Formats: sequence, structure tokens, C-alpha cells
Amino acid sequence: MANKKQVENKRGVVARKVKGFRDIDPSLNQLKWKIINAASEVYKKYGFEHWDTPILEYADCLGKYLPDDDTVDKGVYSFKNPEIEPVLRSDGSELRDEDAHVVMENQHLSMRYDLTSPLARRYAEGLLEKYQRHMLTQMKPPLFRRYQFGPVYRYEIKLSPGRFREFWQLDFDNVGTNDVAADAEVCMILSDALEAIGLPRKSYVVKVNNRKILTGYLKDLGVADDLTEQNIIRVIDKMDKIGLEKVALELGAGRTDESGAEIKGLGLDEKLVSGVTNFIGGFSTQKTRQEVLADLKKLEIQNETAQEGIKEMEKIDTILSALDFDEERVIFDPSLVRGLAYYTGPVYEVESLQSYIDSKGVERRIGSICGGGRYDGLVENLLGIKVPATGASIGVDRLAELLMLTNQAPQQKDGPVFIAYFDEALMPHYQKVARDLRTAGIETEVYYGMDKKKMKKQMAYADDKNCPFVVLIGSNEAEAGIATVKNLKLGKEIADNYTDKKEWMEQVQKEVPIAELASYLNEQMKG
Amino acid sequence: MANKKQVENKRGVVARKVKGFRDIDPSLNQLKWKIINAASEVYKKYGFEHWDTPILEYADCLGKYLPDDDTVDKGVYSFKNPEIEPVLRSDGSELRDEDAHVVMENQHLSMRYDLTSPLARRYAEGLLEKYQRHMLTQMKPPLFRRYQFGPVYRYEIKLSPGRFREFWQLDFDNVGTNDVAADAEVCMILSDALEAIGLPRKSYVVKVNNRKILTGYLKDLGVADDLTEQNIIRVIDKMDKIGLEKVALELGAGRTDESGAEIKGLGLDEKLVSGVTNFIGGFSTQKTRQEVLADLKKLEIQNETAQEGIKEMEKIDTILSALDFDEERVIFDPSLVRGLAYYTGPVYEVESLQSYIDSKGVERRIGSICGGGRYDGLVENLLGIKVPATGASIGVDRLAELLMLTNQAPQQKDGPVFIAYFDEALMPHYQKVARDLRTAGIETEVYYGMDKKKMKKQMAYADDKNCPFVVLIGSNEAEAGIATVKNLKLGKEIADNYTDKKEWMEQVQKEVPIAELASYLNEQMKG
Repeated sequence: MANKKQVENKRGVVARKVKGFRDIDPSLNQLKWKIINAASEVYKKYGFEHWDTPILEYADCLGKYLPDDDTVDKGVYSFKNPEIEPVLRSDGSELRDEDAHVVMENQHLSMRYDLTSPLARRYAEGLLEKYQRHMLTQMKPPLFRRYQFGPVYRYEIKLSPGRFREFWQLDFDNVGTNDVAADAEVCMILSDALEAIGLPRKSYVVKVNNRKILTGYLKDLGVADDLTEQNIIRVIDKMDKIGLEKVALELGAGRTDESGAEIKGLGLDEKLVSGVTNFIGGFSTQKTRQEVLADLKKLEIQNETAQEGIKEMEKIDTILSALDFDEERVIFDPSLVRGLAYYTGPVYEVESLQSYIDSKGVERRIGSICGGGRYDGLVENLLGIKVPATGASIGVDRLAELLMLTNQAPQQKDGPVFIAYFDEALMPHYQKVARDLRTAGIETEVYYGMDKKKMKKQMAYADDKNCPFVVLIGSNEAEAGIATVKNLKLGKEIADNYTDKKEWMEQVQKEVPIAELASYLNEQMKG
Repeated sequence: MANKKQVENKRGVVARKVKGFRDIDPSLNQLKWKIINAASEVYKKYGFEHWDTPILEYADCLGKYLPDDDTVDKGVYSFKNPEIEPVLRSDGSELRDEDAHVVMENQHLSMRYDLTSPLARRYAEGLLEKYQRHMLTQMKPPLFRRYQFGPVYRYEIKLSPGRFREFWQLDFDNVGTNDVAADAEVCMILSDALEAIGLPRKSYVVKVNNRKILTGYLKDLGVADDLTEQNIIRVIDKMDKIGLEKVALELGAGRTDESGAEIKGLGLDEKLVSGVTNFIGGFSTQKTRQEVLADLKKLEIQNETAQEGIKEMEKIDTILSALDFDEERVIFDPSLVRGLAYYTGPVYEVESLQSYIDSKGVERRIGSICGGGRYDGLVENLLGIKVPATGASIGVDRLAELLMLTNQAPQQKDGPVFIAYFDEALMPHYQKVARDLRTAGIETEVYYGMDKKKMKKQMAYADDKNCPFVVLIGSNEAEAGIATVKNLKLGKEIADNYTDKKEWMEQVQKEVPIAELASYLNEQMKG
């Protein structure tokens, strides 16, 4: 006991972030908000409205739809609410024990792991506030279209590089529509949003498929139960990573991976395996949507669900083609499945066609940057009625990474114009100069640091902050109504061209009358 | 046991928000982001950069600086990290038990309760990454200026109306400066930011004080220990709510409140009580800053800290006056203390001078909308060296509420232009019309709801969403290349002027050629 205490006394408070979390610096923030604002403008243009939901929700309301985990706790940050509250029955009334006392509990809260399940909660809660449960079964669920952005939380036990446990999503969804035109619109919005963010045409492609086709085809092949179907989809989803051959092995007897680990196969019979691989290997992303539709029809799938799926794809193509969204932007890819179990119809994925050279000199593809689909069952769990819905999500951090890796974003943003400190008596003068610059639209900072007397420290600060210009005013300059302006950016750019320091200084330093300072700087910064 | 099971089986999943949390609708979101963007622009103009920190932090790093609670758990959402990790010593090395095994633990995480303590963590962490601990004691702490916005979390047990457990702050801070010019700048930034958000001059006032003056004055009166000082400050902080007379009672023998509850007094002697009340009652917010400074000097406080405080106020006044920030914007108020224990020098508070009429017809003042101050000790706990800092925070939700209550914000934002659905075959046509409107900058929505066949439902949807115009295109109109445009907004406004429905319809409905639709709507919406 004494020993334990001794150990505890040595505990220290060390300033540190939680593993898997990160701070966002000004450059990444600039990029992140450029993405969010550009995409939000597009979502708004299509009539989606900005709703927000809390980051904390009751665990039972969020349910569990993460791809790889089975229990409510895994993958999610959950804890017991400090508040003790009545437990409810599904009709909203308070649960009572055999002595008729209300059952009280500290209920489980979760930090949201996506923006779709809180949307389902909000939609269901909104209807339950307005209608009685029995009325819901007799009405068509109303339409609700919203966009939302914000952080989501995943407690992933293994963290691969560049993955975080807190990351931002940027979603838009239609709840309460079975119209496939809404799905066609999702594809157009994804394309418009990515181009508004700055991705050039042909640097990405929106891939579309319909789950109904594959599941119908599997039924024709003799797959009768949902579990087998889900398992097959899970294996097909690895296609991009492991290729067709290994997919075939995992559908059948299993395989041994590079590390020598056994990967158990689904144990499907040979005919079924070849049926699946023929299907997913039988299409080319080089074909037009019409050609893909023709290939699908050639398969003569008898199953009605599959036929419905093909018809939906035809309608999507009709709308996209009428609006000139051709195969440069949207293609059909029958091998696309998306891992999430809750998708029920059309699924979408945006693939970046760009590549970058990694630190080892290897060319790497970026791959998937957004995804979505139709999820006709998600709200049903909370409401007891079917509510068809469709939407998609842009991974903000993933996209920011893409823009950085492919040099489509500045590595460091410009800092403010920097007013150096020389003389305590001039502080009001510095403030006035700064104020005039700000009024002229120029971000300006007066130095307040504790190393004021060391000009070197001030310049290092301005350099760290990527300040484009430094304004130097001593008492002589103040009296003469001038300032010396040093162009830090130019100074760095041309430093190698000069061996003579004086010549270099002449290029990067200039005396400017205070009255002309704002217009001088504005002109310089335009250039 | 059987009974318990029976009870558990009846638990239901009811779509509900956690108590104290709320969804943000499009109108409130519009207002909220208007506030955030306008203030952020001002912060940036002054050279602050946008940093972000995670919402989850180690509980020990955040420390505990909430005003009313004593323990780490109270007031904060905390839970154990699912990840087991080594416990650290304060030098960053792993703590080991007597058998030299690394001590592993699920450490406590907290959802941040403000943006200042994560800033202290980030600042300290940044220095510890760059320098060794012994170097820190020999250097001046570097300057770091950042702004940040985002939600913070407080588990307040009693929730008063309009208060939430998740709310947004909008902070800017200077860490690593002892220059009072930075404090003067804080006042200017608060004023500029509030006016950029839309608050008219004279509808608010920035109040400034310096903790040093009061604490020095208290020392002169004989208050020797920190605890008594903190207790006195806590009572003075209630001044706005309870008035001078009750403050005097709470400093002395205590009092009985309206409900009959006993409020324990501090038990200070009469001389001390009258000393304190003379001080805080002896100033008027109607006086100029110069007059307040003269009044302060007349008190002839001997204590050096107090004299230092008065000098700092003089410097703040010099800078503010040089930049024409007169008493219309910034006043000195020696009775202002701010509740937070970590403030050490200048403190600021913005008071809204506006009032509103509540639901019972009573005129109510809005009161405090932002606050801040100098906190020279906050980073010290993590770093072991003194790091002077100063900054302030705008309460986003509070300000949004003010704008709503005083009718300075629209109660509902406009929705998109609404294209009604008549005919499945026309879907590509609707899409094309929508696309042309969007290209012309008009937010436009095509209806995808499941009640398409009922025009009444469509109109109710458009009305709910506050759509300004509905575009109606049946097959005849499509063939003729026209659309019927219904002005929903005008329709509502003039509905009472017409008894004849036909006349009213003529006013609010118009046939417009499709080719002219975008320019027609743009012109109408400008008006």
C-alpha cells in the first residue's frame, strides 16, 4: 500500500495529445475550410439546408453500423452519462419495475462515429414529436434534405499512418425519397462539389453501382441467406486492394497472405465462386454507361430485384445524360459494392485518378475520396416504418491530404504583415499604422513578444509565421513619417542570386511614406 | 432474476437527444456561422491564426478551472480511455513499479470544457517538443497568437432555460506576452468583432478592470491570504445579480434569500466589509476612463501591485485614446472582477446595453456577452515556468440569442426556389431547369418526396422550408417552353388584402418563358 502510494506520487502531468488525435495548424485549417465552404455552397445550391446535431448521443440511438465490429462498444467512444435518468419503453413511456417504481439508470452515451446515424435519430425524433406512432404507419414519410459537417470519432485499435480517431465528414442526405432521380442528383452533387473545391475534370470519377443487381444475381446463383450475401459483399469489397484472384480464393478455400497468416475462406462451392468472379471481373470501367447496361442485360438475370436495379441504373443514366454528365464524370461499375451493411440500392464512390510520389520515391494512387449510397432501412430501427433515404459523404481530411500530396494546396499559408517593435514610446504609433493597414484590408500584427529587444527573435517569429512583409519604424523614421518595408518572401526567393548583401538588401528593402504604406503593400501583395 | 429480465426486455430505443443538448436548425446555423465568420475575419486582421485542437483531451492536461466546482469530475464529461497506456512521470519518462515494470493504465479523458486549457496544453506541448525542460527556465517564452472556435462541454447539473451542455466559443489569445498593449488590443478586437457581427455602436460596451488593483487594495485593508481574497472576489462577482447591499451582507454575517434559504456570509469584520463596498460602490460607469483613473489615485492605495495595476490601466487608456476608442466603446469599471480564479491582471467583459420583452411582457436586459482577461499562471502548471497570456472569448450561442431576441436576425432563413413535380417523364426537364437556375446563382430544389402526387403536400413542404418561389411545369407548359411561377413570400404577405382568390392569384402567379426564368427570379429576389 505504501509502495503503491509512492508510485502514484511520481505521476506527472505531461502536456500531450490523446493518441490518434491531432492539432490542426493554420495551413491545414485554411485548406479544410476551403473544402467545407466550397462543398457547402454546392449542397445549398441543390436545396440542402444546414442542420447540426450534437457530438454526444445516446448509444442506443446511434445503433451500430460500423463495417468491422459487432458490439456497441467496439470502435466507438462510449461512457455512462453522469446523469441518472428514467429508462424508457419503445412507446416513450417510463419503464417501471415490479413495485411500479420508475427504473433509473446512468445510460450509455457515445461520441458520434458518423453523421448518418445522428441524422436518423433527428429525423425519427422530429416525426415522433409531430405524430403518434400509429399514425406513422399510415403516412408516407416526409422528405428531409440536410447537409452537415463536423468531427466524428472512431476508436480504431490499430492506427495506420495518416489515419486519425477524430476526423471530419461533410455529408448531404435525402431522407424520405424512393425516387432514383435523387440518386442521380447525388452523383451530380459529388462531381460539382469536387470541382468547386478545385479538382480538375478527369482527375476523379464518380463510380455508381446498384446493390440490387449483385444481390439479385447472387440469388439466381443460389445464395439464399442474408449472412452469406453480406459475407460475399465483404470479400468483393477487398477487390481494389487484393485483386480478383485473391478474392476468388477468399470466396472459396481461403488463402495464405504475404506474412504467412491464414485467411479463412467462405468455403463457397466452385460454381458459385466462378459465378461471382465472372460477374465482378466481367465489366470494364472503360465502357460507357450504355455499354455496361447492355452487358448487364446480356447476363439475363432472372431475379426481379436485379431487374429493378438495372431499371434504376437506366433512369440514373437518362438524367445524367440529359444534363451532359458523361463518362468523364460518372461511370457505372458493377463490381463496386461499398463495405457498409446498411446500403440497399445505388452505391457511389469517388475515385481520385491522381497519384503522387511518396517519401520512398514510389508512385502511389490516392484511391477513394468520397462514398455513399441508398440506405432504405436505417431509420426503420428507430421508427418502425420503412424510410427510404440516399446520400453521400466527403472525407474532408482525406481530400485535404490529396490536395497537399498532389501540390494543389500551398504547403504554408501567408501570415500577416508584421510590424516590428523598436521603442516603447512608439507603441501608439505602431498601433495606428496597423489600424490603417487593417482598414485597407491587410492582415497586420504588432509584435508583443517578450524578446522585443532582440530584432533577430522578432524576425525569426515573422519568418516562422510566413509573414510576407516586415514594417520597421524607429524613432527617426516615425519623425520623418516613413517606414522601412522588408519583403521577406522576395528575400527568400532571390537570396541565392546575390553574393553581395547590400545589393540583396536594396532589392528587398524599401523606404515608404506612412501615408502610402497601405497602397504600397496592397500592390505588392497583388503581384 | 426472472423479473429483472422481464423488465429489461421491455426497454425500448426511443429517438431522443441527451438532456441539455440540441439540434441546430438552418436559421440558427446561418446566424451562428455569420457570427463565427465575421469575428474570425477580425481576429485574422489582427494577425491571429486559426488553430484547432481535439475535443477529447487527457483530463490531467486540461486541469480544472471551472468557477464553481472543486474536483476534476464535476462539471466535465470524463471517462476512461479504452486504450491502456503507460503512465508518465513529469519529465515524460514512463513510470515503473517496484519490479521495474511500466505502470499501465486506462487514463482519464475529458471532453474540453473551454478552449483556453487545450491552448495551454498545445503551447506547452509545442515547447516541450522543441526544447529540453532545463532550457525552458533560461529562455523567454515565445509568443503564440491563435484564434479558435468550436463546441465545449459542461455537465451542469442544474440547467436553466436557454443554457446548454454543448455550446460554442470563439476565442483569441496571446500566449507569451507581458505587454499591456496586447490587453488594449483585446478590447479593440472585441469591439471591432462585435460591430463586424452587426451590433451597432453604443448597443454594447467593453468594460475593463485590473485584478491587481482590487487585490492590492484588499492587502492594504489587511486581507493576507489567497483564499479570503478569492472568496471576496466570488461575492463581488454577484454584484450585477444581487446588488451592493446584499453583497455587503454576504461579505459579513450572511443573509436569507427570497426562498428563505440561508446564504452563509464570509464573516468579515465591519471595517473590511465597508472598505470593500466603498471601493466597488465608489465608481460610476458613466465616468470617463481618465476620471476613473483619477478616482483610483485619490484612494492612495499603498500596495505596489495595485499601483502597477493602475499604471497598466493608464497604458491601456493611452493606446485606446490614440486610436479613438473612446468611452462609447471601452470604459473602465473597477467593480468588474470576473469569476474565474485564473485571471491575474486586466479583465474584460462586454455588456450588451440592449433589452428585449420576454414572453411575460417584462423588459429584460441581455447582460454579459463576452469575457476574458490576463492569465499569467495557466500554462505554468504544465510547463513549470511562468508564461504571461491574455485573451478573450465570444459566446457564440449567447450572441445568436441576443440577435434573435432583439430582432436583429431573421427568425427563419429563406429556403431554395422549389420546382414542383407533375410528371415522371418531365424529370430530366425539371433537372435541366434546376441546373440553369443554379448556374445563375439561385439555390434550387427539385421535389423527390414520396407524396409527389399530392400538390398540397408539395406546397406544404415548400412552405415549411420557407421557399420564396415555386416553379410549376406540367406537360403543356413544358411543350410551350414556359413555367408558372408562384411567389410564396408575396402570397403570404398580401393574403389578407384580398377576398377574391382569383385576384390574389393574379398578383402572386405569373407565366414566365423558361429562357427568362433565371433572370426573372434573380430580379424578383433582389427586390
